[in-house]
Amino acid sequence: MTIFLDDIEFANMMCSPKDLDSLAVGFLFAEGLIRGKKDIKKVIADEKDGVVWVELRKPNKPPENLIARRFITTGCGKGLTFVDTEKNNMLLRSKSMFKVRVASIPILMKEFHRKSRLYKLTGGVHSAAICGTRRILVFNEDVGRHSAIDKVVGECILKGIKTNDRIMVTSGRISSEILVKAARSRTPVIISKSAPTDLAVRLATDFGITLVGFARGSRMNIYSNSWRVVTEGHRIGSERA
Amino acid sequence: MTIFLDDIEFANMMCSPKDLDSLAVGFLFAEGLIRGKKDIKKVIADEKDGVVWVELRKPNKPPENLIARRFITTGCGKGLTFVDTEKNNMLLRSKSMFKVRVASIPILMKEFHRKSRLYKLTGGVHSAAICGTRRILVFNEDVGRHSAIDKVVGECILKGIKTNDRIMVTSGRISSEILVKAARSRTPVIISKSAPTDLAVRLATDFGITLVGFARGSRMNIYSNSWRVVTEGHRIGSERA
Repeated sequence: MTIFLDDIEFANMMCSPKDLDSLAVGFLFAEGLIRGKKDIKKVIADEKDGVVWVELRKPNKPPENLIARRFITTGCGKGLTFVDTEKNNMLLRSKSMFKVRVASIPILMKEFHRKSRLYKLTGGVHSAAICGTRRILVFNEDVGRHSAIDKVVGECILKGIKTNDRIMVTSGRISSEILVKAARSRTPVIISKSAPTDLAVRLATDFGITLVGFARGSRMNIYSNSWRVVTEGHRIGSERA
Repeated sequence: MTIFLDDIEFANMMCSPKDLDSLAVGFLFAEGLIRGKKDIKKVIADEKDGVVWVELRKPNKPPENLIARRFITTGCGKGLTFVDTEKNNMLLRSKSMFKVRVASIPILMKEFHRKSRLYKLTGGVHSAAICGTRRILVFNEDVGRHSAIDKVVGECILKGIKTNDRIMVTSGRISSEILVKAARSRTPVIISKSAPTDLAVRLATDFGITLVGFARGSRMNIYSNSWRVVTEGHRIGSERA
């Protein structure tokens, strides 16, 4: 896919050729180019040719700036320096009181696997979802674990579905980059059937995010901020206890 | 890890902090900055601080050129355009007559899994190997599937182990970028326990590379140039039949 931002070629990436508008919007959000739907004037996707044009309401970034940014955030975790700053730590820190019942997690994961149709066909893609405490709200699949998440976050932005006080589920490993995606979209809980990295666990602890790994069947590991995963009898969602 | 190339900061990447000299050399090779050991004057790795300095014999690339390159190959499969050119197709095309016995593949995969110690401990890393027809020659693990391959190719370069007429094994999916890494290192056979992408299969077909996916137990799928996988009675290795 090629993303044109205000008629300037902004990024090229390999992806599964579906829901490119969501992917482009989610990617621009993850890269910090847009903060929400209000920043977007128009999105036009040509799925056949793999091109998405995004027009911003305030085209306030000159081309030099965009190129500089793209140079810094060279993907594959090469743009991590920005999360090291105190300022970003403060900005990304979750203050959410959101909670989820431990018994809900296997139910969400079961629905997640049931929806992973392209994975069942190919064994070659990743899945991602944004969930409430009881069910999956938005789901997608992509050849890349980063892009699968960008697709669900982008769809939420385009459809006006709030992502704060939600649960992010991913089939992929939770690396620091993935954790930062969760932090940016304000989801206070991230769950994976796979492993987290050491740096992701440290960031999740710092950012006040609940990181659940190896969620398989009724088992799971809770690596940070475990107070959000509660047993029967506790209030759930974002109700204050 | 930060790679300094002739004292210029060339790349930053997330990786497992081990064998950084091999990773740096393999990465520079994959990016086309070096063609072999003869291009390298000196490699100094500081594994504690995650910095590698590489000095070239002919520092013929000006900084502008390096920055331009880094800008184009932004990782995560964003630099694929170069393989579309006819010239690269010709350069990367394998003319090797190398063959491997079908019965050897499960044996190599078993040794591969046995060596994947960090994966057994964490569930969070990928493995890669360069093998002869009978055994693994070089093996490594890394949090990234790209970097695991760069480490084994880099070690081969540093130790003067030839990679042509060898087998590349990876635990990760075989995407087009991974296939191009195999093509650049001249390994005519690439095997994975995971899935290939459609584009990787097409490139493998074009490049004359044998792509084996879903190699699990005694089962496997051969997606391209299956003439290299032979049964008992055939000559193996690179002997001409």
